[in-house]
Amino acid sequence: MKSVLGKIHVYTGNGKGKTTAAIGLAVRAAGAGFKVAVIQFLKGQDYSELKVLQRIKGITLQRFGQKTFIHQKGKKPDYRSAQAALIAASQTLGSGKFDVVILDEIIVAAFFKLISEKDILQLIKQKPTKVELILTGRKASKKIMQLADYVTEMKEIKHPYKNGLLARRGIED
Amino acid sequence: MKSVLGKIHVYTGNGKGKTTAAIGLAVRAAGAGFKVAVIQFLKGQDYSELKVLQRIKGITLQRFGQKTFIHQKGKKPDYRSAQAALIAASQTLGSGKFDVVILDEIIVAAFFKLISEKDILQLIKQKPTKVELILTGRKASKKIMQLADYVTEMKEIKHPYKNGLLARRGIED
Repeated sequence: MKSVLGKIHVYTGNGKGKTTAAIGLAVRAAGAGFKVAVIQFLKGQDYSELKVLQRIKGITLQRFGQKTFIHQKGKKPDYRSAQAALIAASQTLGSGKFDVVILDEIIVAAFFKLISEKDILQLIKQKPTKVELILTGRKASKKIMQLADYVTEMKEIKHPYKNGLLARRGIED
Repeated sequence: MKSVLGKIHVYTGNGKGKTTAAIGLAVRAAGAGFKVAVIQFLKGQDYSELKVLQRIKGITLQRFGQKTFIHQKGKKPDYRSAQAALIAASQTLGSGKFDVVILDEIIVAAFFKLISEKDILQLIKQKPTKVELILTGRKASKKIMQLADYVTEMKEIKHPYKNGLLARRGIED
């Protein structure tokens, strides 16, 4: 059982489980004594997991994003909060305080052009050698996948709803 | 935001994130105030997440399985612990005490013939209407996928190792 960190993971695809897998990884890593930073891009809802995550020793959580961004397509996207998340991500990576850094939904933020792909490549470049970096979000670009050590596609095979409007608190949110 | 539970989820495929997604879902559901039972089939290692999960209010964890099952193919599989996990799963579903029941690696236990597919179908049939049921493990059968509401395939696109021998504590385990 090696404990040497430093890999890059990507969770992408249109299926369920990208954010929950990242949360589960945060719990697992904290359980092993690692210091974990979770930065949520584009997440403004009162996600149920936050209350629990904030209480777990070793996990630090930062959230950015509009309350209604994901579900209301007509709304103007919030560049400012995505940019703030980006700055937080860069500071967190550079702080030397964390073993595992999770940038949740950063990939979809780039897809929506709230940040650029170049911003993500810059963060990957900035990553200290021994920091494990986890990036989530659908629509990962080829370039990002090339730079990752692990890429998992969460592929939706079956889903009872055609849209996210019926998301249930504690399960989807 | 509906809170009505009762759906069946399957996380399958050869990629990372099936168990971590289930753990993340347990954390999320507990954060929303639901009572969550996690039953781990075929899991005997000292998984890092367990220490943390056991401390979270609303989550009850039961583990079954040999310490070395997954990584040592030559070893005789432990039918007894898989059967014990099955009984625990049935009792947990029937107890009326839980809103969310997670049967981690039950699908791969069936694939290894430590339990039968019929056992899983029986558990699905037994599930109370309002209980959310999550089944994980690679090699889900068509029949199980047909009965599920959500099916997500975790598809390995890229992985740095060809086998699981270099699993790192706190990340893979």
